[in-house]
Amino acid sequence: MKKKRRIYHQNIPLQEAIQRWSLLLNTLPPSGEEEVRVDSSLGRITSRPVSALLSSPFYHSAAMDGYAVRFTDTFGASERSPVRLKIGRDAMGVNTGEPLPDGFNAVIMIEDVYEREGEIVIHSPVPPYHHVRTVGEDIVQTELILPENHRIRPVDIGAMLAGGLTTVFVRKRPRFTIIPTGTEIIKPGQRIDRGRIIDSNSYMLGALLLQWGAEYRRMDVVPDDQERLTEVILSALEESDALAVIAGTSAGTRDFTPHILGEIGEVLVHGVSIKPGRPVILASVRGKPVIGVPGYPVSAYITFDIFGRMLVDHLLCQSGQREEVIRGRLSRPVSSTIGQEEFLRVKVGKVRDRYIVTPVGRGAGALMTLQRADGIVRIPEGIELLEANSPVDVHLMKDRYEIEGTVVCIGSHDNTLDLLANQLRKRFPQFSLSSSHVGSMGAMSAIRRGEAHMGGTHLLDEATGEYNIPFIKRILEDRAIVLMNLVYRQQGLIVQAGNPKGISSIEDLTRDDILFINRQRGSGTRLLLDKILKEQGISPHHIAGYDREEYTHMGVASQVASGSADVGMGIMNAAIALGLEFIPVAEERYDLLIDRESMNLPQVEAVLEIISDDGEFRGLVQSLGGYDTRDMGKIFYEHGR
Amino acid sequence: MKKKRRIYHQNIPLQEAIQRWSLLLNTLPPSGEEEVRVDSSLGRITSRPVSALLSSPFYHSAAMDGYAVRFTDTFGASERSPVRLKIGRDAMGVNTGEPLPDGFNAVIMIEDVYEREGEIVIHSPVPPYHHVRTVGEDIVQTELILPENHRIRPVDIGAMLAGGLTTVFVRKRPRFTIIPTGTEIIKPGQRIDRGRIIDSNSYMLGALLLQWGAEYRRMDVVPDDQERLTEVILSALEESDALAVIAGTSAGTRDFTPHILGEIGEVLVHGVSIKPGRPVILASVRGKPVIGVPGYPVSAYITFDIFGRMLVDHLLCQSGQREEVIRGRLSRPVSSTIGQEEFLRVKVGKVRDRYIVTPVGRGAGALMTLQRADGIVRIPEGIELLEANSPVDVHLMKDRYEIEGTVVCIGSHDNTLDLLANQLRKRFPQFSLSSSHVGSMGAMSAIRRGEAHMGGTHLLDEATGEYNIPFIKRILEDRAIVLMNLVYRQQGLIVQAGNPKGISSIEDLTRDDILFINRQRGSGTRLLLDKILKEQGISPHHIAGYDREEYTHMGVASQVASGSADVGMGIMNAAIALGLEFIPVAEERYDLLIDRESMNLPQVEAVLEIISDDGEFRGLVQSLGGYDTRDMGKIFYEHGR
Repeated sequence: MKKKRRIYHQNIPLQEAIQRWSLLLNTLPPSGEEEVRVDSSLGRITSRPVSALLSSPFYHSAAMDGYAVRFTDTFGASERSPVRLKIGRDAMGVNTGEPLPDGFNAVIMIEDVYEREGEIVIHSPVPPYHHVRTVGEDIVQTELILPENHRIRPVDIGAMLAGGLTTVFVRKRPRFTIIPTGTEIIKPGQRIDRGRIIDSNSYMLGALLLQWGAEYRRMDVVPDDQERLTEVILSALEESDALAVIAGTSAGTRDFTPHILGEIGEVLVHGVSIKPGRPVILASVRGKPVIGVPGYPVSAYITFDIFGRMLVDHLLCQSGQREEVIRGRLSRPVSSTIGQEEFLRVKVGKVRDRYIVTPVGRGAGALMTLQRADGIVRIPEGIELLEANSPVDVHLMKDRYEIEGTVVCIGSHDNTLDLLANQLRKRFPQFSLSSSHVGSMGAMSAIRRGEAHMGGTHLLDEATGEYNIPFIKRILEDRAIVLMNLVYRQQGLIVQAGNPKGISSIEDLTRDDILFINRQRGSGTRLLLDKILKEQGISPHHIAGYDREEYTHMGVASQVASGSADVGMGIMNAAIALGLEFIPVAEERYDLLIDRESMNLPQVEAVLEIISDDGEFRGLVQSLGGYDTRDMGKIFYEHGR
Repeated sequence: MKKKRRIYHQNIPLQEAIQRWSLLLNTLPPSGEEEVRVDSSLGRITSRPVSALLSSPFYHSAAMDGYAVRFTDTFGASERSPVRLKIGRDAMGVNTGEPLPDGFNAVIMIEDVYEREGEIVIHSPVPPYHHVRTVGEDIVQTELILPENHRIRPVDIGAMLAGGLTTVFVRKRPRFTIIPTGTEIIKPGQRIDRGRIIDSNSYMLGALLLQWGAEYRRMDVVPDDQERLTEVILSALEESDALAVIAGTSAGTRDFTPHILGEIGEVLVHGVSIKPGRPVILASVRGKPVIGVPGYPVSAYITFDIFGRMLVDHLLCQSGQREEVIRGRLSRPVSSTIGQEEFLRVKVGKVRDRYIVTPVGRGAGALMTLQRADGIVRIPEGIELLEANSPVDVHLMKDRYEIEGTVVCIGSHDNTLDLLANQLRKRFPQFSLSSSHVGSMGAMSAIRRGEAHMGGTHLLDEATGEYNIPFIKRILEDRAIVLMNLVYRQQGLIVQAGNPKGISSIEDLTRDDILFINRQRGSGTRLLLDKILKEQGISPHHIAGYDREEYTHMGVASQVASGSADVGMGIMNAAIALGLEFIPVAEERYDLLIDRESMNLPQVEAVLEIISDDGEFRGLVQSLGGYDTRDMGKIFYEHGR
């Protein structure tokens, strides 16, 4: 089988790609202008300086409730020789904000006058324009209210209207067309079959464009047909300022995009040494910018966030820096590929006053790792290894205060943690719980290193049959901690619906026709399995698939559901969730290990409150199935102060 | 003249007002839910947890270009005894992303096989599901994608679509009705007469609501008519979740709002000891929250930003902290009123690595001071004086990076600075210039204290007739500075159009029928006037209005234009701008004094570039009138390194 394959003809550093792209952008004028009503200009960008048409106030007005007078009438007034002014002729009652009557030029506060027989009596002279808001005190006619290229805020709307403007010139929203491509791509809501992929990218990129101040239309999915795609691109270009063509940017047999763009325009960049996002294409067709966005969703997001945002910012004359950058420390070593700038997705938690930065999954297709990330760390091309504890700059994808209100939970995975996260968010919207799944031993290490507020753990000590406490005594001797029960749960074998292979016990795992899926080293579930194998004298070498690792119960269940494994070990609830069969093996205790120093943080207190006495939460856990909440919130062990 | 006056029946601390408001809010359920399409859910708030309906990938697919095989077929393959697999039967060509053919369960990369005679030859066994993206690798069916109360971002849209969702339940946008009141209030665009005020508040508050995720309708302005206002409030309540009634909250004769709200509902709070914003009303009518917003625009903004935002956040189950808070140091002492929490508007600049916080105007009616502010400092009730250099927390109204890209210009005012600010923003959108008008001596002090990057100055030394340099030598001996010319400009007397009082010289200022308006102490213009007065032997005591101070040339011109002064001293351009007459007195030099240490900041470099060689800027200055640019950009003096 021969295949026609193209090779990346470029693989240039990001900085060079940005330079080439800037050269093209600099040939493009800013987005044109349009006149819009001030009251619908929120978030738009001014295309001209905005100056006041009127002064505000527009007339002299009383700054206090009282009487308007002529200041010259008050000359010489004193305690000894008070001045009397006739109300209605020489002294006119005014409320705050009312215009001064013609010829009057000062105001005496109501509190400072004595009214008698239709006159007011005053005992000191009044300076000119005393207690008067004079014309232009706030805004002077012709005064600059907004400079060019300013993003309009609510207060700017108020100021423009007060300055007599009803319309304002703003930059037109740049018009993008997004073209999703690929014969296998279907629209959301269409029936999905094997081999089909839902188009999520074009909507995600569209939402980014809206956020940046551009607008877009989305074409129907174009199948892998060179002629058809060429037509669509050319016709879309006529009505757009820029295009994003999604997928087909790689070097596969059906990746037409680079070829087409090269034929009808000029490919400036194909392939940038970044990870993910390498196959991005930057092109100019008929003088307009076209981005060939890679199809893997994380690659799509990251490349569009660089090159698409640069483009929109250029057209709207905005500067690109918007996300906050904080400095934190890596919780574990990270290796990277020399010659590639990596955009590492990370979680960030503030524990004991330090920002702890933990990498999450790295696959270009793993959208959830991006969705769950708190930010991005850029690892430069020349770096091969970042040691644990290295300082890194994180480009935040959330507000800093959200990160500071986050409970960092690192350890064993259990589905009740998802429920807990949701309940926290529901009852305390200012807080959230972020959980990383690294197994029970991971919880011990994270607490020991001061990198987590809490973590789930279900480590069974073989010698004593006791859960967690022997490990804590060994590993966390000099850390103040509290061990609180969350649930008891059923562990067992998860098999396909109907149990087609007739699996009934751990022994069956060694059968030739059975493919197993395991949990990762350091997880409590794996330790439990290993303990049982040892008790029963079964060697792991006889279990096919023992070395295949998943990081969560749901991951294991999913492998079984899809048929890529016949059986895995996990919790009952994971089997229930995916309609699988469950063969109980043991009840185990699942506790939360809590850093005592963090217990007075308001977000940690909120979590503990939910665990200790939130009937709704308890009920939700019970309704999951496979859980027993008899000791929920009970403290089994603590030490240190 | 007797007036019916009401007295504030409460004037409670902010914290207590917030508590009372919270009690009402806690009786209100969250905003109801509605189902919207995922692709139009950007920025909405989830009202339920969102879980995946499908796994993603939905099927096992190739993670590499190559051949799909059955891993069991490859057992025992080695260099010595390679395994051959027939292409099309035991090895199927697959591209990245394509589904594995039925029964196949591993992929060998194209680079790792040798094709011969319709077979591939492999030399090592392949582990199960090698180079396969298994079902659920990204998203597992039933997995929690978003918790409840989560604000939807572009990446969340991608994840929901990939997880098989096409719709999502979100909280309805809370529906507000905004009711502007006041017989004197007109709509923007209506003809403005004396005594009329343009309604800017209702649009400004509406824009805030949109920003917070609520929606609103705005009623026509309701005149001061108790019956009519009552009707409008009651009917608006039926179709709204909440009301904002603007103005009429004070204690004037036509301030009906508290009375009406007390009759048809319950006034929880009337009068909060904050400044500005004291007369705010918080009420409950038919179980719905009503905010009586004070009419002064800064009071309106600040009270609505507290109580309106709390309300929207409550209904949308969001937490209130959104703005960034930074710690800076006050550039000058600030006195405050005991018993009132003050919301002090401030400018913030980063100079020599410190955030310098400078208060701006404090009037409740001075919207421009809010519009130009970078943030708000809250001065607690019990504080009477904050010394210069006190540390203060600033609640930012801008992004921190905007503040860090700002050129801090403190000193004398000139209209060319506005042009410079605009040109900077136009050519370098990432930078801005913030100028505070405190006079030429203020520039000297600010540079000396390291609180400004630059400042305008036009100080004429009486003894030598030299500009600025003698002062610099005296005051800034130990600071490294550069003195660069910006313009020469005409100073003179600004009089009303047609010069009705026949003013022709400085001597005329002493006439009995003439009211003068002066500039503030320390301003170059005032020094120039004083020098001339001295030369001519005129005593300031003989000039009526000598003690009335304005802080800018435009302020002086505006006073003259409005008739509240007959004459003032200022620059020609200010007279031209407002159509006034100008009697030249002297040409003077206006320089920029620049802190040398700040000169390598990119934003300062950008300013210097514009001054030194931007023909467009020079042309714009010349077209203002009254300026000479012959030495623009020329360095007259420097010292220090």
